[in-house]
Amino acid sequence: MANIGFIGLGIMGAPMAGHLINGGYTVYTFTHGETPKALIDAGAKQCASGAEVARNADIIITMVPDTPHVEDALFNPEGVAAGLSKGKIVVDMSSISPVATKEFAKRINALGCEYLDAPVSGGEVGAKAASLTIMVGGSETAFNNVKPIFELMGKNITLVGGNGDGQITKVANQIIVALNIEAVGEALLLAAKAGADPAKVRQALMGGFANSRILEVHGERMVKRTFDPGFRIELHQKDLNLALTTARQLGVSLPNTATAQELFNACAAHGGKAWDHSAMVRALEKMANFEIGQ
Amino acid sequence: MANIGFIGLGIMGAPMAGHLINGGYTVYTFTHGETPKALIDAGAKQCASGAEVARNADIIITMVPDTPHVEDALFNPEGVAAGLSKGKIVVDMSSISPVATKEFAKRINALGCEYLDAPVSGGEVGAKAASLTIMVGGSETAFNNVKPIFELMGKNITLVGGNGDGQITKVANQIIVALNIEAVGEALLLAAKAGADPAKVRQALMGGFANSRILEVHGERMVKRTFDPGFRIELHQKDLNLALTTARQLGVSLPNTATAQELFNACAAHGGKAWDHSAMVRALEKMANFEIGQ
Repeated sequence: MANIGFIGLGIMGAPMAGHLINGGYTVYTFTHGETPKALIDAGAKQCASGAEVARNADIIITMVPDTPHVEDALFNPEGVAAGLSKGKIVVDMSSISPVATKEFAKRINALGCEYLDAPVSGGEVGAKAASLTIMVGGSETAFNNVKPIFELMGKNITLVGGNGDGQITKVANQIIVALNIEAVGEALLLAAKAGADPAKVRQALMGGFANSRILEVHGERMVKRTFDPGFRIELHQKDLNLALTTARQLGVSLPNTATAQELFNACAAHGGKAWDHSAMVRALEKMANFEIGQ
Repeated sequence: MANIGFIGLGIMGAPMAGHLINGGYTVYTFTHGETPKALIDAGAKQCASGAEVARNADIIITMVPDTPHVEDALFNPEGVAAGLSKGKIVVDMSSISPVATKEFAKRINALGCEYLDAPVSGGEVGAKAASLTIMVGGSETAFNNVKPIFELMGKNITLVGGNGDGQITKVANQIIVALNIEAVGEALLLAAKAGADPAKVRQALMGGFANSRILEVHGERMVKRTFDPGFRIELHQKDLNLALTTARQLGVSLPNTATAQELFNACAAHGGKAWDHSAMVRALEKMANFEIGQ
């Protein structure tokens, strides 16, 4: 049974590492600050650096906030790369730049190690329930080696392609989710302003081509005005920033993603960083000087 | 059994009227030009004007291209209104302005008659197969009276609310469909430009919150490059024009609907008026100087 390293024990990482310990794995940890006491009690082996984690583990997972944090965790002088030896596998489960990911993978490969990018969706709830969706980029061999470990943390696990393809799939997911929220917002707001009952309009639309998971879940939130998260706007802002940065790097124009980000920015201006992302409709409502349900 | 009037026997109206004749109803017709021979052979009774249709029928259906055509069919001196008497029901199944609809309904109500707005989705295929989705606005009494007739033409039939609510639901439907197409287009194009396989990305996304009927159906069209209609861009341009006009009348800002219309306009500039609406992705591809599948 492989030894596992886990770097980054925040809101997502801590429950994920917990599932691996409960699954019988020996887990070596390193995080900003101390490893949570509950994990230590369960058997986590706290290390003094990423390099020490990498020396002890066969598979090293990173779960940190953004691209610079992954770069730091892997490549600072006391980072993971400093402790790697041939045949080990680095698995980055953070949501970061697909372009930077390809570069990180090359640098890890150059040390004789495999790299998987394996960002997740499902948030804190999915991390705790071990029901995360995991989108993976990398070699099939590495994927098959790590799959039993993924299965302790998630349910819908797909190898999409080579390195970077997991991250771009996550970005694509967040683009569609944001733009489908925006679409439902425009449609229900216009209908409500015209005097129709948005709940009945939503119901009628669910039978046809307008139907989506977002119309079902987030459309209901808009109608019932339940904007407690869920998934916080500030997290979706980070994801759309990744989308727009990647688009600029690759030379792709994403006009509606840009607008959706501006609408999130408008929500933030009204104190909404911690609102559920379905509250993007509030930015449209501010412009219309009218609220659904008014 | 009520006598039915049917005004407008185009690509949609002709098969719809045919279903009513096949259902055993006597159908009085009036259209631009001649009533199709097949309908006459089946028993349609061709009239010289909308007024003559209205004098003979209890329920008068209009199925014409746009708002001015409905206004003309109802209120020109030889139109439907001139032949109405108390207790008859006017049913507009065209897709037209929700704001104008409320005005038309008032003028028909003033003659002692009921009005239903009952636009459809499903297109020519749905009209022929009698599988249209029908979104209805008007009184419950009138709806219940006309329901057996709707059931000869469609399957998913909803009374959304009062007059205009059927039309605004259709507009809302077309907003969401256009913007979900745009969303899938941005996401798959970015993923493809990043080097991922768009077919695999689409497959991975279908398991989560990004899933939609549009990702399933139109996403597949984008990947397989099958842009024969389906639903023609020029028809969706008409629908988004209704959305944007209604938004301006009501004081609502629809930023992404506006962008989607511009992308359709760009497709038209490249000869794409008759492409399927999923080909909106081609406008994004022109901007990116890159095609999915390249």
